[in-house]
Amino acid sequence: MSAKIAINGYGTIGKRVANAVTLQKDMEIIGVTKTRPTYEAWEALRNGFKLFTPAERVPVLEEAGLEVSGTQEELIEEADLVVDCTPGKFGAQMAELYRSKGTKAIYQGGEKHGTAGVSFNAYTCYEQAIGQDHVRVVSCNTTGLARSLYPLHKEGLVRNVLATMIRRSADPGDSKRGPINAIEPSLKVPSHHGPDVLTVIPDIHINTVAVKVPTTIMHMHANAVYLTRDVTPEEVISLWEPYRRLMLIDGFKGMGSTAQVMEMARDLNRPFSDLYEIAIWRDGVHVDHGVLYFFQAVHQESDVIPENVDCIRAMLQIQNDPQTSIDMTDRTMGIWR
Amino acid sequence: MSAKIAINGYGTIGKRVANAVTLQKDMEIIGVTKTRPTYEAWEALRNGFKLFTPAERVPVLEEAGLEVSGTQEELIEEADLVVDCTPGKFGAQMAELYRSKGTKAIYQGGEKHGTAGVSFNAYTCYEQAIGQDHVRVVSCNTTGLARSLYPLHKEGLVRNVLATMIRRSADPGDSKRGPINAIEPSLKVPSHHGPDVLTVIPDIHINTVAVKVPTTIMHMHANAVYLTRDVTPEEVISLWEPYRRLMLIDGFKGMGSTAQVMEMARDLNRPFSDLYEIAIWRDGVHVDHGVLYFFQAVHQESDVIPENVDCIRAMLQIQNDPQTSIDMTDRTMGIWR
Repeated sequence: MSAKIAINGYGTIGKRVANAVTLQKDMEIIGVTKTRPTYEAWEALRNGFKLFTPAERVPVLEEAGLEVSGTQEELIEEADLVVDCTPGKFGAQMAELYRSKGTKAIYQGGEKHGTAGVSFNAYTCYEQAIGQDHVRVVSCNTTGLARSLYPLHKEGLVRNVLATMIRRSADPGDSKRGPINAIEPSLKVPSHHGPDVLTVIPDIHINTVAVKVPTTIMHMHANAVYLTRDVTPEEVISLWEPYRRLMLIDGFKGMGSTAQVMEMARDLNRPFSDLYEIAIWRDGVHVDHGVLYFFQAVHQESDVIPENVDCIRAMLQIQNDPQTSIDMTDRTMGIWR
Repeated sequence: MSAKIAINGYGTIGKRVANAVTLQKDMEIIGVTKTRPTYEAWEALRNGFKLFTPAERVPVLEEAGLEVSGTQEELIEEADLVVDCTPGKFGAQMAELYRSKGTKAIYQGGEKHGTAGVSFNAYTCYEQAIGQDHVRVVSCNTTGLARSLYPLHKEGLVRNVLATMIRRSADPGDSKRGPINAIEPSLKVPSHHGPDVLTVIPDIHINTVAVKVPTTIMHMHANAVYLTRDVTPEEVISLWEPYRRLMLIDGFKGMGSTAQVMEMARDLNRPFSDLYEIAIWRDGVHVDHGVLYFFQAVHQESDVIPENVDCIRAMLQIQNDPQTSIDMTDRTMGIWR
């Protein structure tokens, strides 16, 4: 029997989660919601998903010619689990509806930890989501940090981390946001990313600073890990290698910037040309005076998608073994080398 | 009597140094060189500078209608000191000519330290340039790091520095360089900036990592200073305040990115809308677990200009007292609050 999943908000994240769920044998999409008759609403129908909307929006969507299968409330009531993919901070408002219908809910990283009370990363804390009703999958940047730091932390190598986040200013399809030609520091230190990592790796010491830059192509993290003992770059790389959601890349092969990384991702022929893996430059790994330096690039639109799939399995107890779920997700999504 | 200064290469840096020298009472520009008949060659003449070029280029410039006053060799022979503002790495080739004519020379930060053997920053090592024949003024980024770190280092506060350089990809007038929509890490760690700081502050511990981003408006440094003792942000700010070539700015007053910083610079009504000062965000200064964090922005085209003026005074022994030279330069250039 397949778990009944609803997607609330068929946008950048929602359409990707819907696609990924469809690839799984143990879950299915029973419907997606959209409040406005944008091209994405038409796409949802074209992709075979049933469309739902809040009761008061039904006439708007129907007038635009869209086939509406019911209200948002009805969809959420019917679902075993709803993946909230509404715009950031909106999930906190939706939580009331999910709770009133008794439907389990996953929130995205734009929401605060407190909205769900439990945060999720498949590598670091799958177990804490098992059977839970409300869980937040941490943001793209936090997911990136959790994935690359976890293997080092597990090995007892991490004394302290300073991660500098060089953040893309907007997604590729967004032409409204800036900066368009400037560098914008987050004057708050730590940026929210450091404390957010603690929701999925509680016992790590980390600080983060962030700047926003005028690109739409990936986030980059320039990481400095203060080590508990000396290691070689080769040892560090060998600690990362078993983790499929990390991809080791080589700058010397012409992969000099995020532009080439995403061009390589297009060659992988995945839906939306996504790159679910965190890309780490092998030739950018250095150890100097007890500090490990490395650069990683994060595809902001997609690294959390496999995490959402695993989170569904944990919450609905379809699968209580993390590695079994990760393997299923990775195999179906082509994260397999 | 006024010292006779030649500018070899009237481009981004050359035209600015020429302008700054003109403002001083103890030195004058006897000529500038240009190898191609670009708009900048016309500008040089319009600004009252005599134009020189290598012997073989005289016909090219004259055919274009430019008035040529003599050859590059003649100019260098006549000068007391030549400021080399040729494109990066070209200065090393020019050094031979300067030496053969017995003319003192200043090189810019694009050259290696070895080309001159002596590097210069007015705050940190004015004395080591006094009477020297060949000196390099360090690059814009190194100048920025030297200026903000020196007051902290002098106070014995600096145990170790990790500076993350978020670098502009091109100057505003350059439409040929990239990245145009990507983030490009310098996979070499440390980037050249860290070792370069040691040429002007030899006894500091510093490491730097660098990424290039698609903007033309300033470099940014996200700095982490591991402290020898606890200080408050207010104490740190008070250590910076006496230094006029540091400008403390406030993000909360709408100065949220390098775009606003340079917009403010335009309001200062200086030549080329330059900002000679390193801008440090006051509300971006934080101390957390023995680490000082701060953000600074560097106007790549102009922060080294007052340094060049001071360097001339030191090399020609016009003025052996650093502070007297700095005061003269700052007053004439409007770096005075």
